[in-house]
Amino acid sequence: MQVQGKPYRTIWWDDAEGCVRIIDQSLLPHEFRIAALRDPAEVAAAIREMRLRGAPLIGAAAAFGLALALRADPSPAAEERAAAALAATRPTAVNLAWALARVRREIAARPAAERAAAALAAAQHIADEDAAACSRIGDHGLPLLRALWARGPRESGRLHVLTHCNAGWLATVDWGTALAAVYKAHAAGLPVHVWVDETRPRRQGASLTAWELGEHGVPHTLVTDTQAGHLLQRGRVDVCLVGSDRTTAHGDVCNKIGTYLVALAARDNGVPFYAAVPLSSVDFATGDGVAEIPIEERDPREVTEVSGRTADGRLETVRIAPRGTPAANFAFDVTPARLVTGIVTELGVYPATPAGMAALRAAAGEAVTTGGPRV
Amino acid sequence: MQVQGKPYRTIWWDDAEGCVRIIDQSLLPHEFRIAALRDPAEVAAAIREMRLRGAPLIGAAAAFGLALALRADPSPAAEERAAAALAATRPTAVNLAWALARVRREIAARPAAERAAAALAAAQHIADEDAAACSRIGDHGLPLLRALWARGPRESGRLHVLTHCNAGWLATVDWGTALAAVYKAHAAGLPVHVWVDETRPRRQGASLTAWELGEHGVPHTLVTDTQAGHLLQRGRVDVCLVGSDRTTAHGDVCNKIGTYLVALAARDNGVPFYAAVPLSSVDFATGDGVAEIPIEERDPREVTEVSGRTADGRLETVRIAPRGTPAANFAFDVTPARLVTGIVTELGVYPATPAGMAALRAAAGEAVTTGGPRV
Repeated sequence: MQVQGKPYRTIWWDDAEGCVRIIDQSLLPHEFRIAALRDPAEVAAAIREMRLRGAPLIGAAAAFGLALALRADPSPAAEERAAAALAATRPTAVNLAWALARVRREIAARPAAERAAAALAAAQHIADEDAAACSRIGDHGLPLLRALWARGPRESGRLHVLTHCNAGWLATVDWGTALAAVYKAHAAGLPVHVWVDETRPRRQGASLTAWELGEHGVPHTLVTDTQAGHLLQRGRVDVCLVGSDRTTAHGDVCNKIGTYLVALAARDNGVPFYAAVPLSSVDFATGDGVAEIPIEERDPREVTEVSGRTADGRLETVRIAPRGTPAANFAFDVTPARLVTGIVTELGVYPATPAGMAALRAAAGEAVTTGGPRV
Repeated sequence: MQVQGKPYRTIWWDDAEGCVRIIDQSLLPHEFRIAALRDPAEVAAAIREMRLRGAPLIGAAAAFGLALALRADPSPAAEERAAAALAATRPTAVNLAWALARVRREIAARPAAERAAAALAAAQHIADEDAAACSRIGDHGLPLLRALWARGPRESGRLHVLTHCNAGWLATVDWGTALAAVYKAHAAGLPVHVWVDETRPRRQGASLTAWELGEHGVPHTLVTDTQAGHLLQRGRVDVCLVGSDRTTAHGDVCNKIGTYLVALAARDNGVPFYAAVPLSSVDFATGDGVAEIPIEERDPREVTEVSGRTADGRLETVRIAPRGTPAANFAFDVTPARLVTGIVTELGVYPATPAGMAALRAAAGEAVTTGGPRV
């Protein structure tokens, strides 16, 4: 999507320099900087330090990292070493392991001289496929927004979408998941406006979603997570649209902490709540998300400390609680399927029910069962 | 309650110095400092700058401010001037106007020589009454906590209370409202533990509730507002207990933004949700809180900027969103009565229904109809 009036992806191959380029997300929203990653160690560090994040983007980055490794040394030993190092960066990210496996499959039968080029082609293909899949998620989400807008004129003259965390193009190679439909609607001339949940503790809404919507020119308003219920209660939201880290075969949606509260408030006020979900993030092996999904606990300092930029431009970290205050930091929660209006995927919109998810699985067909979730 | 092992109120008369003393809450949680207020202008400034906050405390402070004015000049003109200046500090605070009116009633018929002493006695009385009323709220809340604990042994060995914002002794003269029951339970030997919602944007949970519980020695854990749903869903909360800025004749509870989301999650998981409410904050003239209560919008910078202390001890304000990001800042929300298990007052626990609130009004009797909400 657009940054400073120019189209970008979050990751791309720089053929002239023979390196991978990324938008360094750790500096956002305060600085827009393109970084070069020149070997698999730099890619692994970038993933670990969250200079790039989002399951689909991490998968593409790992694939490019493996391609870089093979350009330097096409031996199976180097391949093995790099794959292990890249896989260890974020052990819970399903896309990461999947992308590495896919590159390795592509090069398995090739002669040594072709391995580096084949790996790079595979990484490029993964990136292109991710962008295309997200674009299709947007294509399937757009009619939902059109239908809501078509219900009749609104006092505000706008179609209000509420989103949580960052399920935008910064979490993918391009387009995003939840925000793909927003970008499509904006391009189609719908007067879309996005309520952006701050998303404590890491504030991906404030730092990433607000930034990417602003750069692309989509009207939006930042709110604290505490305001979502009030906005829904007062009729200020037409639809909630979020991403998902893991969606189960029952239709339960595991996503950034706080998503469940948004879904409860949407339901209490009769507002539709959709999760936009790449097939690669659907976990057909899990049924009951509340019972079966373990929730990651992160460093309590993410709760007790906040980083940002001072008025005179310095980056500072400030403590907001009494020294030594104990804090808990659960990173995700599970929204039960009963609160989810539908699951928007690159194959269409499916009900968040066992039957709906089974239909999605059938539509995905072979691709799922062979471990290649992108179709 | 206790600070650094010594009992304090939030406001008191310093007879030796002839001034009012307060805990300067604008410095919390980073610094515990007692401030002296020597004239009504200083009291008004302290209220305006939120060096003290919380409806009951503001009322007591305004009363002391008027007493200070009369000590300097007992004339009706000075009284009128000071009362107007104090009333203008926080125009929506019901207690403030009520406390000023009460002091003025007490001195109306007195000779000039007695007016200053009578005003001070009235202010003292208001402060003492507030502490006593909050203590009684705690006495009525305690059996609710005892009953929950008596349901049987818990895996965690603790009784988990979740609270939002600061409804502790810092918002009152002593004891607090929601937290009064917690302090009583702690004193009674119940193994109470409090999940403290951070409460964005102003973070009263992180800066005030965590501080006062810590100083008094009550076990607690700070969480982001986004985590309340997950904790409730996973059985980690036995009861939600919040304060209220305004409770209607239908039992709707207007409280700090985000309270409604907590109530929704409590209901979805079968956990009781109580509001602890001094009679002075009940608005019997309002029925439907969602339809009738206008919600204050505050400076968007409270959303886009965060203040705190750096590791080397400096106070800094950092911006957490892109420069120029539009933000909304609704300060309160309304929790519909249907989500409220009960209203805990100094007269007992009442159902959050029109009948329950009517019974509360009857119990409060004359005091309410004559404009004197404390009984």
